[in-house]
Amino acid sequence: MTTPAYDHLTETWIRMHRFGHLQALAGWDQAANMPPKGNEARAAALAEVATLLHRMRTDAALPEQLARAEQEPLSELQRANLREIRREWRASNALPESLVQRRQIATSRCEHSWRRQRPANDWAGFLPNLKEVLALAREEAERLSQQLGVSRYEALMDRYEPGLTTAQVDRVFGQVRQWLPGLIRQVREKQAHETVVAPVGPFPVAAQRALCEQAMRLLGFDFEAGRLDVSTHPFCGGVPEDVRMTTRFRDDDFIGSLMGTIHETGHGRYEQNLPRDLLGQPVANARSMALHESQSLSFEMQLGSHPGFAYRLAPLVQAAFGAQPAFEAQNLHRLLTRVKPGLIRVDADEVTYPAHIILRYEIERPLIEGGVEADDVPALWDEKMMALLGVDTRGNYKDGAMQDVHWSEGLFGYFPCYSLGAMYAAQWFAAMRRALPDLDARIGAGELAPVFEWLRDNIWSQASRWTTDELAVRASGEALNPAHFKAHLEARYLQS
Amino acid sequence: MTTPAYDHLTETWIRMHRFGHLQALAGWDQAANMPPKGNEARAAALAEVATLLHRMRTDAALPEQLARAEQEPLSELQRANLREIRREWRASNALPESLVQRRQIATSRCEHSWRRQRPANDWAGFLPNLKEVLALAREEAERLSQQLGVSRYEALMDRYEPGLTTAQVDRVFGQVRQWLPGLIRQVREKQAHETVVAPVGPFPVAAQRALCEQAMRLLGFDFEAGRLDVSTHPFCGGVPEDVRMTTRFRDDDFIGSLMGTIHETGHGRYEQNLPRDLLGQPVANARSMALHESQSLSFEMQLGSHPGFAYRLAPLVQAAFGAQPAFEAQNLHRLLTRVKPGLIRVDADEVTYPAHIILRYEIERPLIEGGVEADDVPALWDEKMMALLGVDTRGNYKDGAMQDVHWSEGLFGYFPCYSLGAMYAAQWFAAMRRALPDLDARIGAGELAPVFEWLRDNIWSQASRWTTDELAVRASGEALNPAHFKAHLEARYLQS
Repeated sequence: MTTPAYDHLTETWIRMHRFGHLQALAGWDQAANMPPKGNEARAAALAEVATLLHRMRTDAALPEQLARAEQEPLSELQRANLREIRREWRASNALPESLVQRRQIATSRCEHSWRRQRPANDWAGFLPNLKEVLALAREEAERLSQQLGVSRYEALMDRYEPGLTTAQVDRVFGQVRQWLPGLIRQVREKQAHETVVAPVGPFPVAAQRALCEQAMRLLGFDFEAGRLDVSTHPFCGGVPEDVRMTTRFRDDDFIGSLMGTIHETGHGRYEQNLPRDLLGQPVANARSMALHESQSLSFEMQLGSHPGFAYRLAPLVQAAFGAQPAFEAQNLHRLLTRVKPGLIRVDADEVTYPAHIILRYEIERPLIEGGVEADDVPALWDEKMMALLGVDTRGNYKDGAMQDVHWSEGLFGYFPCYSLGAMYAAQWFAAMRRALPDLDARIGAGELAPVFEWLRDNIWSQASRWTTDELAVRASGEALNPAHFKAHLEARYLQS
Repeated sequence: MTTPAYDHLTETWIRMHRFGHLQALAGWDQAANMPPKGNEARAAALAEVATLLHRMRTDAALPEQLARAEQEPLSELQRANLREIRREWRASNALPESLVQRRQIATSRCEHSWRRQRPANDWAGFLPNLKEVLALAREEAERLSQQLGVSRYEALMDRYEPGLTTAQVDRVFGQVRQWLPGLIRQVREKQAHETVVAPVGPFPVAAQRALCEQAMRLLGFDFEAGRLDVSTHPFCGGVPEDVRMTTRFRDDDFIGSLMGTIHETGHGRYEQNLPRDLLGQPVANARSMALHESQSLSFEMQLGSHPGFAYRLAPLVQAAFGAQPAFEAQNLHRLLTRVKPGLIRVDADEVTYPAHIILRYEIERPLIEGGVEADDVPALWDEKMMALLGVDTRGNYKDGAMQDVHWSEGLFGYFPCYSLGAMYAAQWFAAMRRALPDLDARIGAGELAPVFEWLRDNIWSQASRWTTDELAVRASGEALNPAHFKAHLEARYLQS
């Protein structure tokens, strides 16, 4: 039984994977290594390979190949791969090349200006660029919506979390909105009675780097298949066979680089442990961005901020910077779990973080659907920050709606993935505890292998074989259930 | 007057330049950064882009476009560009795609294994990979030979030094072979009476790196358009807009990394100063590898080992490692010009270096022509090292035939360029001295600008506008004349 059309498709996708390898490497290098005068040539080279990939994905021969492949005798795994190939094909073919180009130009301009405008708190200067990016995002959403048969905002979320609906997000975020303000208050009251010793710097960058690499080793990162470098905005790039993580160092603080590195290590291990036999095919890609964030947050929050894990980190921190009272395990844990409402999402603790996401969701969804305009954003931001976290952002655009790069880059629909990821992470650890009732004691004893085995078997090795819902049911017995996240926060922040 | 066919060709070449950017970056990263498990995916990605470039260069529409462009009203510069486009087209069209792919895979595998096998002195492990690379190189040589109407070895040399003939190489190397052994003897006798103080290590790697970067600045390298990293085999890669130089450090010796860096800086400045207006077109590429080596050796040997330049280096070395008697300028110059037959080409002094090249030429030419097999290499190596330099290499493969990366990468026909480059460099400095009779005094006074200006005007800015012979005549009044090299060695090593 031969499958010529399917084979032809997979060959095309392997070729695209190889060009994608060069694209990923060049993107990582641009952030981690490239000197400034290299930028123009790099941008031209990246645009050239993006054009090539777009042409390959919109090749006029593909629709017939897809139709023929669907009639071929495929295995279940091949059929899952074909489903993912069709998904990628459909998304690429919904958008005309001219729109892709206009978006590229508008987001480049907006992001480039934002880098100067944000420190200058220049909302008026930022607004016209944002409006242009928003107009194009709405056009994209409209076209994708017609192609996919879902709402416009759903069509944008679908790029990052396939199949996610606004009904799901509304249900989940609606629940969180009910209990979150009360929980934050309770945690703050409890923590007001705790003593926390602050670390005394400076923390030399070479020692921080060595500490980060030790934490990566402890967490099973394979340095034969990846590396850690430095960039302004930390990320996890590269390819599954060669994962390029980045972090950033400040010599007055080591917790930022350490916890950022632990976060990226979760992304990195997911990539490093994707199934090898089908690598290059969409079915072997990470399932979605919410699941990717569920891995980084499993590492950073579930494991990295676990009271038992502090006993693993403490000796490493002491070896790096010398002994200090602040580096005792229990104090280290308190430092890592301090809750305080603040202005900046990326600096937020685990408990207040969802408020930042709910706020963005409640603004960007009507922005795309047309119920809200870019001019309305600051007033909405002020109102929601006060309601959700009790902080005043009036007139402070740079630490308000201008703090994230996402809207400048046209990445509407991404934000929900962060909090869904935190909820999935709690759900995974709840499932692990059902399978291993002594899990927390094992983590306290430095036995991390059961965690990694569970994640490997249930998440990493499954890649894109199932939909997110199917994967969640197979892994944990149910689709996304935010009750696990609530239970996790209560256990860690109120009961311990 | 329009030139549609020419314009179409230049657009294609610009696109290839952009893909070449990604190729160059991925090649640099492979040597400087890539962890071992990334190699297979990297090799596949590099093969994919090589295939794409090969398809673009062998597009069936090109012959007609070339023919039509030749009838269009082109400027002299455009005509030179068209000549170079045709040259590239002709070389690419001699090779079928399958051969290009097999070569890419075989050389990636051979080079990657060589990195482990060389330190292990594992000739037996290396041999099968080398045989495969050699078989493919012979196949390439045969096909190129038929296409270009030159001998097989000439067809390979033509890639690096267009138009170079074995008759020229035989003539030049034949002359050198006559006077070199006697000169080495004379210099050794003279130097036996000189006192040289050896530097006392260790030399911390961080200080060596800072010293190398200072030397690069002194020599005008633009760090806004390039960087220095570490690799096993130092090279100068990247693209003209973003030059990626590498070196290597040993903490018991700083001269190797310093002079290696000065060497690569010559390559780097050539690339950084190629004409910008036509960048991406073949006419704006470096003329040839012999001319490239003439730049690295102008920097390393003509300038870096100049008795006056030692007065520039001495304070930098003292600042890096503290004062030592060995770091006095005159002693430093003696260290840099010490002549001693040795095993390693890249560590060889200026006087014995040509012997290493003549040996490789005498082995690789019959390897390609079929008179010698890969199995025969160690015995030939032992015999020729003894005859040319009086050193014993028996059983020492890692410092013998496995010392260079070239054959692993299939770069047969490259080695002659190094010594031709040394000869061109001597010829350039002879021409500079005719134009500026006080050149040596100026170098001694730290005035390096006249050297850089001469090289910029006569070599860098000329790129591939002329053939190598034409460029040499324009720059120095004559084609390659090895008498300048002999005169340089005698002046520096016998008369000073």
